[in-house]
Amino acid sequence: MIEPEKGRTRIVIEGVKPEIDGGRFPIKRIIGDRVVVETDIFADGHDVLSAVLLYRKESDPNWTEAPMEFLVNDRWRGSFVVTELGRYRYTFTAWVDHFKSWQQNLAKKAEAKQDVSVDFLEGAQLIEEASQRATKRDTQTMQGWVESLRSNQKSKSTKTRLALSDKVAAIMAKYSDRRFATTYSKELVVLVDREKARFSTWYEMFPRSCAPEPGRHGTFKGCEARLPYISGMGFDVLYFPPIHPIGHTSRKGKTNVPKAKSGDPGTPWAIGSEEGGHKAVHPQLGTLEDFRSFIAKAREYGIEVALDLAFQCSPDHPYVKEHPEWFRWRADRTVQYAENPPKKYQDIYPLEFETDNWQNLWEELKSVALFWIEQGVRIFRVDNPHTKPFAFWEWLIGGIKKHYPDVLFLSEAFTRPKIMYQLAKLGFSQSYTYFTWRNVKWELTQYFTELTQTDVCEFFRPNLWPNTPDILSDYLRDGGRPAFMTRLVLAATLGANYGIYGPAFELCENRRRDTVSEEYLDSEKYELKRWDIESPNSLRDFITRVNRIRRENPALQSDLSLRFHSVDNEQLIWYSKCTGDLSNIILVVVNLDYRYKQSGWVDLSLEELGLDPNKPYKAYDLLADATYQWQGRRNYVELDPQKIPAHIFRVLQVVTT
Amino acid sequence: MIEPEKGRTRIVIEGVKPEIDGGRFPIKRIIGDRVVVETDIFADGHDVLSAVLLYRKESDPNWTEAPMEFLVNDRWRGSFVVTELGRYRYTFTAWVDHFKSWQQNLAKKAEAKQDVSVDFLEGAQLIEEASQRATKRDTQTMQGWVESLRSNQKSKSTKTRLALSDKVAAIMAKYSDRRFATTYSKELVVLVDREKARFSTWYEMFPRSCAPEPGRHGTFKGCEARLPYISGMGFDVLYFPPIHPIGHTSRKGKTNVPKAKSGDPGTPWAIGSEEGGHKAVHPQLGTLEDFRSFIAKAREYGIEVALDLAFQCSPDHPYVKEHPEWFRWRADRTVQYAENPPKKYQDIYPLEFETDNWQNLWEELKSVALFWIEQGVRIFRVDNPHTKPFAFWEWLIGGIKKHYPDVLFLSEAFTRPKIMYQLAKLGFSQSYTYFTWRNVKWELTQYFTELTQTDVCEFFRPNLWPNTPDILSDYLRDGGRPAFMTRLVLAATLGANYGIYGPAFELCENRRRDTVSEEYLDSEKYELKRWDIESPNSLRDFITRVNRIRRENPALQSDLSLRFHSVDNEQLIWYSKCTGDLSNIILVVVNLDYRYKQSGWVDLSLEELGLDPNKPYKAYDLLADATYQWQGRRNYVELDPQKIPAHIFRVLQVVTT
Repeated sequence: MIEPEKGRTRIVIEGVKPEIDGGRFPIKRIIGDRVVVETDIFADGHDVLSAVLLYRKESDPNWTEAPMEFLVNDRWRGSFVVTELGRYRYTFTAWVDHFKSWQQNLAKKAEAKQDVSVDFLEGAQLIEEASQRATKRDTQTMQGWVESLRSNQKSKSTKTRLALSDKVAAIMAKYSDRRFATTYSKELVVLVDREKARFSTWYEMFPRSCAPEPGRHGTFKGCEARLPYISGMGFDVLYFPPIHPIGHTSRKGKTNVPKAKSGDPGTPWAIGSEEGGHKAVHPQLGTLEDFRSFIAKAREYGIEVALDLAFQCSPDHPYVKEHPEWFRWRADRTVQYAENPPKKYQDIYPLEFETDNWQNLWEELKSVALFWIEQGVRIFRVDNPHTKPFAFWEWLIGGIKKHYPDVLFLSEAFTRPKIMYQLAKLGFSQSYTYFTWRNVKWELTQYFTELTQTDVCEFFRPNLWPNTPDILSDYLRDGGRPAFMTRLVLAATLGANYGIYGPAFELCENRRRDTVSEEYLDSEKYELKRWDIESPNSLRDFITRVNRIRRENPALQSDLSLRFHSVDNEQLIWYSKCTGDLSNIILVVVNLDYRYKQSGWVDLSLEELGLDPNKPYKAYDLLADATYQWQGRRNYVELDPQKIPAHIFRVLQVVTT
Repeated sequence: MIEPEKGRTRIVIEGVKPEIDGGRFPIKRIIGDRVVVETDIFADGHDVLSAVLLYRKESDPNWTEAPMEFLVNDRWRGSFVVTELGRYRYTFTAWVDHFKSWQQNLAKKAEAKQDVSVDFLEGAQLIEEASQRATKRDTQTMQGWVESLRSNQKSKSTKTRLALSDKVAAIMAKYSDRRFATTYSKELVVLVDREKARFSTWYEMFPRSCAPEPGRHGTFKGCEARLPYISGMGFDVLYFPPIHPIGHTSRKGKTNVPKAKSGDPGTPWAIGSEEGGHKAVHPQLGTLEDFRSFIAKAREYGIEVALDLAFQCSPDHPYVKEHPEWFRWRADRTVQYAENPPKKYQDIYPLEFETDNWQNLWEELKSVALFWIEQGVRIFRVDNPHTKPFAFWEWLIGGIKKHYPDVLFLSEAFTRPKIMYQLAKLGFSQSYTYFTWRNVKWELTQYFTELTQTDVCEFFRPNLWPNTPDILSDYLRDGGRPAFMTRLVLAATLGANYGIYGPAFELCENRRRDTVSEEYLDSEKYELKRWDIESPNSLRDFITRVNRIRRENPALQSDLSLRFHSVDNEQLIWYSKCTGDLSNIILVVVNLDYRYKQSGWVDLSLEELGLDPNKPYKAYDLLADATYQWQGRRNYVELDPQKIPAHIFRVLQVVTT
């Protein structure tokens, strides 16, 4: 009828922040981060409360306690540092603290000069009870206090001073009566990743286009020659589209025509042939051994290789014969190819996750990821995760990270917002975003405020791509070189994680196949390309400079401090990032208009950035290597898209001695 | 390893609104209300989904299904009507609908003039499978469709028309394949109260001050003579402070002095004497039989009697002898009286809820409420609920409402916001608010927006009191009669539930005991009063008019439609309430300045209220019985506190024929 253990637990713990979907999903942090959590804690009546935060590595059964601090309006805060990769759990315990309540009442009564002789006896009783829980040594000390409080020899003021002393408070806190403590009903989880989850600079490249001579199929060996170029620009993740054998049946030709000509290489996403499936290497790229060597070589250049997990098959994939039950068979005894009516992708068979044999399908797909992990891969870019069941990803990523907590997964889900967020919640380390299509000030401001200033930032790590092999945006097509510079600066400073599809990007490739789609003219998805990376028009040096600025300024290595500021020109966007201690403050202003010079007065809340509004400060433009002496909240800027369409300032207060 | 039942349930259901603290607490509704709920529902891929809302009375094991409608951005909406008092449960089920997906693809392919011959065969197969779950009669119909779709005789357009027809859709929806359906992980609760929980008009009165001659102690019989007066003003709840025997020990004298003189009646909140405790009637008020008669008499006047549940005892309460373990004993073997240092309340002993014997204390207190319920009481005003454990109230109110779902509890917790909200969440039907101290425009606007436009409105029903026996606000003290009129109009129109402490209120009693406290001079809490209710200065007629306006205008009988509008004078506040169908629209403008006449231009979004901005409309002032012909969004008003400090307009479009 009445639950016996509930009757005397008087505390309510609620309103925990962060807490994703009532604790259903973990929050995400990076190793070394301090996890700060707040919660409402209150009880009936006017007693004083005590509260602690409990945390542990998930694998460790023992909790560690961290103190909680009372803020205001029944709000409390606690924190702990995560020092290992993997999952931590945390929760809260709070209790009515009768000794602290007694101290508070005693202080008030003493101040009002009321009789407190009975109060001293009650305090003595509380200390005596607590001493039952104490070490021998503390018991002795406490017994002394009990005697003092009961003594007729001691004065009221001596007893009051003792009762309210720090030493009494400290010992009594150790032995506080927690019999009726309330522990929060949920254990919440923090998922701790390595730093690259938060700060990474990606370069996407088709290895088959890296041959030294025109018309030749590139190889991993050939890609090695490209490493100094990529590393020199400052990229630290090199992402390859699928490197597996490509199917022949219904292979797509150049520019995505339905029938390939002889010699057409097909799209790398049509995975599998008689030469193997997801665990095989395309023979023209080299051997598995070559791939492992390439990974090692890349590592020497500070580059990690990311592979594509594209769980779909060409009609020639070994799975089709070995596991026909993993595909959807039509009424005419053919396998259902991918389609999004009226579009048809005859060279690709989706996997049928509603198969009765789904459990061994799941296991097989996990074994694909594990296979590449064994070759040394630690980052996967996952193709279209939103067309596979959510539960599958939670199981696959959770299972893999249990053994390999350093593995990262990038979700390539260009789809509806709730689905993108759901994938991030259930385990993806980073996610593609709508940045690719957000070009004007209000939409960039609104979107990046949502990503960085709401609960979304607890689970969704944006990775910003101005282009991909599938997407040449209107903005890049129309704006040419100035637009490429603008989008690069935006991606690299709005996002601590960003990437480009190169060399198309640095060479400002902006020709479209037609006027209706976003596809490139002569898309690299369907043919070998030869890029003139030494072109004098390349943005190589500009990219190199931007990436160096990112490496040298920790403010740009996280997204949570992003704040937009006001500027009196709709074509200019103006924002800041800074480190928690304000030792590194970066201000960025970008001209979004690739046609005309734009100028305006940028406004800044100096106090928020720890700057004295009455003193001048220096704004070094890290892009142009120029210094401005600024004063006050409003300053003038002018940006010419034909030169450099942005300033990236590092700000320093001028110290006057 | 993989949970077998999870593998093929592809749907996510999240973001349910309303849902209080992850479903920990019910939302509240009134009998006859339509409960409207929204939720995100989505799956991987591009399939079409189906979803239903499931609901039932908590006591009924069988769910009823209501359809859910897709809105936009993965958001769905469903609703159901609550027709009985008590608790309802509801949840959601959704599934990937392969037949609807098939229909959608067929339509697209047909439009693109693609070959759909295999699609017809697949549709036939889906219908054939569904017919396994169908009634005999439907099976026959479905078999006919299967044959048509497989027939070589029928044209493509005939088959397409059949496949996309309403009749096929209707039957297939009945037999949809729900094998892999997802049901939301929680069952949510709606608590359904009677209408008075939402709309009630309270009058607080000390029955002992109702004697026909001065100096005599009032009786229930004497109170009967006051019923026409109270009912005539339009009140429908009459709330009595505690009606129990009052203790003698440490009884407080007039104006709360520590020692009563002989003949001083004491405060009714010092409950219990040798004449009985919480289940007894103060002998000077009459007998239990008298009280029951009074309840019956009041009912004839349309008035419900509300009693005070004040769980505390005078030192003479029988509990002190019978259950010494329910009190806190001090080190000097005295019982701890109530105190909030340095304040002392020696005439009142709090109950000790941390007693080992708490279970029988809880049962006894519940039996007190049940005792008065048996006498016919259905409304309780609960004194200081925030000084008793939360779990106790949830248990007491939950237990009582299980058998008496028509009983209402008003929480008198003037304390911190989170505690007030917690009490409402765990069962209180109505709550006192900070209205008593909110006087200027920005704070009224902010507070009532929080109460009516956030989740708070799902569980917290405000009951607005401009005064109580403990609180004579600065505003009423300083402003006199115009201030009383202003506060009455605000309480009666901002709150569908409101109350006054009379006759102090209608007689504009504004004398304070001293300059530091909010207490009345010669507070009725400590002495018998004789009020001159026939005074010509009484607000009786004004109150009568305001309450009639409330009764005649359903817009004022709920709080959820409250919206504040802009007016160009900080001393004027301007807001509206309307019924859902806009058949009753009330606009209120109040002059918050009790000293000076104030005027301004009130602004209105006419479209939101269903008014044609290009046509004139009539604003009837229901207080002054005057009609204004208005046009456009801005109109002029002028309010003189020496006359009537407010307009309450009913708005009607002028229909031009």
